[in-house]
Amino acid sequence: MPTDPVRLTADLIRCPSITPEEGGALTLLQSTLEAAGFTCTRVDRGGVANLFARWGAQGHARTFGFNGHTDVVPLGDPDAWSVDPFGAAEKDGYLWGRGATDMKSGVAAFVAAAFDFVTDTPPDGALILAITGDEEGPAVDGTRALLDWMEGAGEAMDVCLVGEPTCPSEMGEMMKIGRRGSMSAWITTRGVQGHAAYPHRAKNPCHALLRLLDRLAAHELDQGTDHFDASSLQVVSMDVGNPATNVIPAEARGLLNIRFNDSHSGASLSDWLRDEVAKVDAAFGTRTEMEIKISGEAFLTPPGPLSDLVARAVEAETGIAPVLSTTGGTSDARFVRDHCPVVEFGLVGETMHQVDERVRTDHVHQLKAIYTRILADYFA
Amino acid sequence: MPTDPVRLTADLIRCPSITPEEGGALTLLQSTLEAAGFTCTRVDRGGVANLFARWGAQGHARTFGFNGHTDVVPLGDPDAWSVDPFGAAEKDGYLWGRGATDMKSGVAAFVAAAFDFVTDTPPDGALILAITGDEEGPAVDGTRALLDWMEGAGEAMDVCLVGEPTCPSEMGEMMKIGRRGSMSAWITTRGVQGHAAYPHRAKNPCHALLRLLDRLAAHELDQGTDHFDASSLQVVSMDVGNPATNVIPAEARGLLNIRFNDSHSGASLSDWLRDEVAKVDAAFGTRTEMEIKISGEAFLTPPGPLSDLVARAVEAETGIAPVLSTTGGTSDARFVRDHCPVVEFGLVGETMHQVDERVRTDHVHQLKAIYTRILADYFA
Ligand SMILES: [Zn+2]
Ligand SMILES: [Zn+2]
Repeated sequence: MPTDPVRLTADLIRCPSITPEEGGALTLLQSTLEAAGFTCTRVDRGGVANLFARWGAQGHARTFGFNGHTDVVPLGDPDAWSVDPFGAAEKDGYLWGRGATDMKSGVAAFVAAAFDFVTDTPPDGALILAITGDEEGPAVDGTRALLDWMEGAGEAMDVCLVGEPTCPSEMGEMMKIGRRGSMSAWITTRGVQGHAAYPHRAKNPCHALLRLLDRLAAHELDQGTDHFDASSLQVVSMDVGNPATNVIPAEARGLLNIRFNDSHSGASLSDWLRDEVAKVDAAFGTRTEMEIKISGEAFLTPPGPLSDLVARAVEAETGIAPVLSTTGGTSDARFVRDHCPVVEFGLVGETMHQVDERVRTDHVHQLKAIYTRILADYFA
Repeated sequence: MPTDPVRLTADLIRCPSITPEEGGALTLLQSTLEAAGFTCTRVDRGGVANLFARWGAQGHARTFGFNGHTDVVPLGDPDAWSVDPFGAAEKDGYLWGRGATDMKSGVAAFVAAAFDFVTDTPPDGALILAITGDEEGPAVDGTRALLDWMEGAGEAMDVCLVGEPTCPSEMGEMMKIGRRGSMSAWITTRGVQGHAAYPHRAKNPCHALLRLLDRLAAHELDQGTDHFDASSLQVVSMDVGNPATNVIPAEARGLLNIRFNDSHSGASLSDWLRDEVAKVDAAFGTRTEMEIKISGEAFLTPPGPLSDLVARAVEAETGIAPVLSTTGGTSDARFVRDHCPVVEFGLVGETMHQVDERVRTDHVHQLKAIYTRILADYFA
């Protein structure tokens, strides 16, 4: 009897695995996979639980990998949910609960596909499932810990498919072949406090920061590249906290985020930011400090055998040829890409991270079918 | 025996008259002035105490007016004072306490001068002393209430001298013949909240507000006029309060203050601000609301008989010809100027509003002498 991915999703939803809680989710998957002959290893690091599972011989040249996460984001307002967020109610064609789309369903679909595939048609090759309990949190001891451990243990994937939701609204319409990079900068500009009636005795840090941030926001970073949209810089906060109209404050702060394509790097953009800061400080006589955090560099798995394999399977099962996209936020693919070609395909992400998160049950079955077809084609 | 202005200042300092508390200060002045033949009226409005005092005939064409306040600003950190702030200690040539410079000494100097002048050399004319208990607070029911009452009661000053501290560091170096106007604007720009990875689905209010405020701050309002420095716009706060680097906020706020000279009015500047807001909203698709408060219009008593009278007396007593200035913050002269020519001259303001506020006792005597000479010359 085939493994039911909706039932497995429901079982996972019932595990309250808000990051970094494991909630029983990885334990459930481990026992499921071991029943199909997978060798499982818990790779726990820094208080985060992770699960490595391999079927077939270690080091086989044809090793297909799946990556996903069982941790979920917090509930938001628990009273705003119309169902028990960990109840996994099934109604109106949907399965409801936290993680229903992001991404207990994706994990359930590839676990179910892998289970049945190795059981029904054992391939000449190997499968690796790298499942983390920290994708939604700091992600420092999650997929990175799995990849570090794999390297040390002689485990490697030939290619990897990340099962995150990738479709904006229609099942099958989009896969991801890369991601933009992301970085943030916390900026503090210091001047000289004073009275608004005597501005020549003060140095207004607001005016310097305004000039800096306006220049940065107005700057066209690029016009997009072959596979990427244009890079974008967003000023997301500016804060002084001075209620007194007659006081020129001593300090002003700004916060910005850049999503950048493969024509930039975190380092090149940091250099640019520092240049702009220096120009404005020179013009205004202010002192600006900047703390930069690079969350991930832009990366691309260029269209080729792996994206073709996935796209063909998606089109065969849904009738839709997926767009090869690099849009959206970051994902753990940014870690995997240092090890092997990686693409992402999964469900419609509409309700992810929201109250009343839910997934269409027919989509979950369809996703299992797509993953199964990918495995069949890969090992054919 | 001449009235001692230092002793009167000390008596006033001992009245704890933090706005809007009268603290006994006006009661003390009333009994003092009545002893010299002044007709006194308490003009209390809106919880604020004010004192009107006239010597001589009502409606006399030669009526010299003094204006001042007995209320004081709060103590700041009471433990930071090296003396009792209401103790009026005299040491090292200074009289110490809250209000020592701003402006119980100024009031004491003109009360002492007026007292002795009408006693020793009763003039053919009248003196009006308009003393308020709310200059440091909202100033709605202070000097304005006195002027309103005077108008109704048929009381009028021919000219008026405000006794606020006007000298930056040397006694006699500066008098004020006008003041810049002051206005503030509270600006709220609303866009559409979104995820920093999908900026095209959001409308970033920060970017619109940055452009607006940068344009405003960079704009040269004027280069100054005959008697005024250049007008100045200061952005004093900008606030979003968004700590999440991946969130484009829905709303951003800014606060600015303009000190403007007689080439502008509150209305003309409000029009300009609204034009600039409309341009930026049109360019960014944002909706910006602005709340404007005009604290006072720019005004000038052009150099002439009154300023000459005061300047001559200052130079005769101090050896220094005072600069005719329009710098600094606002004062109650902005209300008086609607009724008669008004100038301001008083002490060195260095320690005003600070901890350990104090005044040089010889300066207080000198100020009484200056005020006395002004009265003598005016009625000569
Ligand atoms: Zn996810
Ligand atoms: Zn004052």
